[in-house]
Amino acid sequence: MSYLIQIAISDAIKIIESKATTVKSETVHLLEANRRILATDLKCKVDHPTNNDSAIDGFACNAVDTINASKEKPVRLKIVGEVPAGKPYYGKINSGEAVSIYTGAIVPDDCDALIRVEDTKTEDNYVLLFKPASSNDIRKKAQDFAKGEILLNKGIVLDSASISLAVAMGYRELKVSKKPRIGILATGDEVIEPGQDLKLGQVYNSNSYALKTLVEKAGAEAVLLKKADDNIKTLAKIIKDAGQLDLLLTTGGVSMGKYDFVRDLLFNEGVVEFWKIAERPGGPVLFGSWQGIPILGIPGNPVSAMVVFLLHAKAFIIKALGSNEIVPFYNRKKATAKTALTSAGFKTNFVRVKLESNNTEVYSTGSQSSGVLHSMFLADALAIVPANSKIVKGDIVEYIELKAYL
Amino acid sequence: MSYLIQIAISDAIKIIESKATTVKSETVHLLEANRRILATDLKCKVDHPTNNDSAIDGFACNAVDTINASKEKPVRLKIVGEVPAGKPYYGKINSGEAVSIYTGAIVPDDCDALIRVEDTKTEDNYVLLFKPASSNDIRKKAQDFAKGEILLNKGIVLDSASISLAVAMGYRELKVSKKPRIGILATGDEVIEPGQDLKLGQVYNSNSYALKTLVEKAGAEAVLLKKADDNIKTLAKIIKDAGQLDLLLTTGGVSMGKYDFVRDLLFNEGVVEFWKIAERPGGPVLFGSWQGIPILGIPGNPVSAMVVFLLHAKAFIIKALGSNEIVPFYNRKKATAKTALTSAGFKTNFVRVKLESNNTEVYSTGSQSSGVLHSMFLADALAIVPANSKIVKGDIVEYIELKAYL
Repeated sequence: MSYLIQIAISDAIKIIESKATTVKSETVHLLEANRRILATDLKCKVDHPTNNDSAIDGFACNAVDTINASKEKPVRLKIVGEVPAGKPYYGKINSGEAVSIYTGAIVPDDCDALIRVEDTKTEDNYVLLFKPASSNDIRKKAQDFAKGEILLNKGIVLDSASISLAVAMGYRELKVSKKPRIGILATGDEVIEPGQDLKLGQVYNSNSYALKTLVEKAGAEAVLLKKADDNIKTLAKIIKDAGQLDLLLTTGGVSMGKYDFVRDLLFNEGVVEFWKIAERPGGPVLFGSWQGIPILGIPGNPVSAMVVFLLHAKAFIIKALGSNEIVPFYNRKKATAKTALTSAGFKTNFVRVKLESNNTEVYSTGSQSSGVLHSMFLADALAIVPANSKIVKGDIVEYIELKAYL
Repeated sequence: MSYLIQIAISDAIKIIESKATTVKSETVHLLEANRRILATDLKCKVDHPTNNDSAIDGFACNAVDTINASKEKPVRLKIVGEVPAGKPYYGKINSGEAVSIYTGAIVPDDCDALIRVEDTKTEDNYVLLFKPASSNDIRKKAQDFAKGEILLNKGIVLDSASISLAVAMGYRELKVSKKPRIGILATGDEVIEPGQDLKLGQVYNSNSYALKTLVEKAGAEAVLLKKADDNIKTLAKIIKDAGQLDLLLTTGGVSMGKYDFVRDLLFNEGVVEFWKIAERPGGPVLFGSWQGIPILGIPGNPVSAMVVFLLHAKAFIIKALGSNEIVPFYNRKKATAKTALTSAGFKTNFVRVKLESNNTEVYSTGSQSSGVLHSMFLADALAIVPANSKIVKGDIVEYIELKAYL
């Protein structure tokens, strides 16, 4: 096997997407729909508002009766009834008459104008208007949307705005994409679970924690697998025991070493789609499948694990979900580099940066070693230094904002 | 009571914050810590890395032995051992000798340089180096952080980067702020639950759905209360039955009408802090307390409900959580208005806008009526049109980005 072929990031994303099967849909109540992906286009079942509604508390009447109303010469109308919200008014309203009306109530057909209570004074059964009534505060039937319109499209991420819109459109439950099940498996004899005493040479398993959070943030279900000892047989057994997985993420075990058993599993017993991407951090990514399960083998350095998730695993999940979200690698903005940003030769380099000045400036957060988590924690974005290029202070650089993904 | 006093937004926020009691903390496992607020400063329990580690697969040796190595004239070293990750090497390594080493393994004290396997060739017990070994790929002890350093501060929102950092710092569980319990209560006879057939004059309860999602996104617990009929007694009973609440959000019932029972409850039986804020949408906000429970009475229009949540309820929750998040009203960026933005006289107007061109341009999303949910759904941000001002095409305008809050 060649160590030399390092494929382009865009090619890696294409291959990964091509192996993602779109999940089935399921129906969930709107109270449980937050962050889920809408699985169908959604048609309005009703007009909104369903009628001409009052936007104020005050009186409904005929504009023509009130044209000359002023503070000095109020117009006097007879109050013949009351229209609370939810209770239509069925009586007749003639010229010279008004009804009191409340926010949300239907404006009676006989009336074409409203006046706010603040601009009136009530005397017995009469109301004095200190200015002309107008139609401005009538919310016209269907001004928000009309029955039959499609407002919410398949593939959107549901949030508070779209969920409340779906309620107003007449829905109580929605068809959403099932959550893909994403396995997470750390490898390496030296990796131990959090909080224990570290023996010489051991490191904490921070990767599984980072990936679990990233997977859930991406709208998928994280399935944490037992850590695999450095042994191809236990690795295979743990994967088999995990049940149906849409994708398995492994950390570690994909490098050039004798103890890289994820690499051995895919090369010896599975299918390898590619090994190594021309990117830093996180270059030695291995992608393939074993017994039908797509496996993304991520290098074990903590920053590599997070960056590879964002660039590649996230693209897989977006495709599996049928989401119309933009793949992070293509979701770029531009700013001015206020510090030089390190290059990585023929590889695209993703430099951890802080955003400043209305997001128009980026600053390196310090050491860019793939083992340095602190500079990842401090970063708002990954600045993209293209292959074979150099970014000096003052250059325009593209960046990927991080906070929405972490 | 006067209808005329409309307080400034900044004053409303100050008053609301002053009534928010900071919640207690609780200890959670790091697997459950996502989106929680860290309740203490966090000191590193270990160095990271704990030793000088290898960042590569290859060989460890002494740089001085390899200075003249080249493709043409390789340097030949004797392989005297192997250092896998997690297994320290206790033997002696002399001049002219090397050990094979793997990613993550401790670099033996006798060695000061590494060479990648790609730049070598193995012949029996010897390795040929095609270039000089260097110290570049040694990850120095504590280069990420040192024992005793405080890296994570009280008040941060935990995410994948901070959670994996906490693991690397030696933690398994963290003290986080408890989730404030936020009651949500819709009022109004005309308001019905989602999905039923609408009778004349009825509207769906979209507000409770929007607020539940917003509350949860803000890191608090949403407690959905039974809808209150328009009656002060049932309203009081429902609130009493809800158990301990840190804040109650009501929608509707705070306007000028005869059926506004939230207003009556606070004015007649509770404490009123303020009524009406000089803002649009969502001006007629009523804030006070009843039987010790802070109550934020939000107008019933769906867009008002969401905007008031962001401007005011979110500020309360941030304070209660002890979060160091910036209050949305003060979390502003700037862009050029590419459409005129409507003013609201002496009120600050929050105009629903789309962001374009690297977030440097804002465009109105259409009707700004507080009943029009569709233009809220389409919005990326709220542009701020200050009181007594006018924004025409080409003006610079401040905006609050929405997506992080919805």
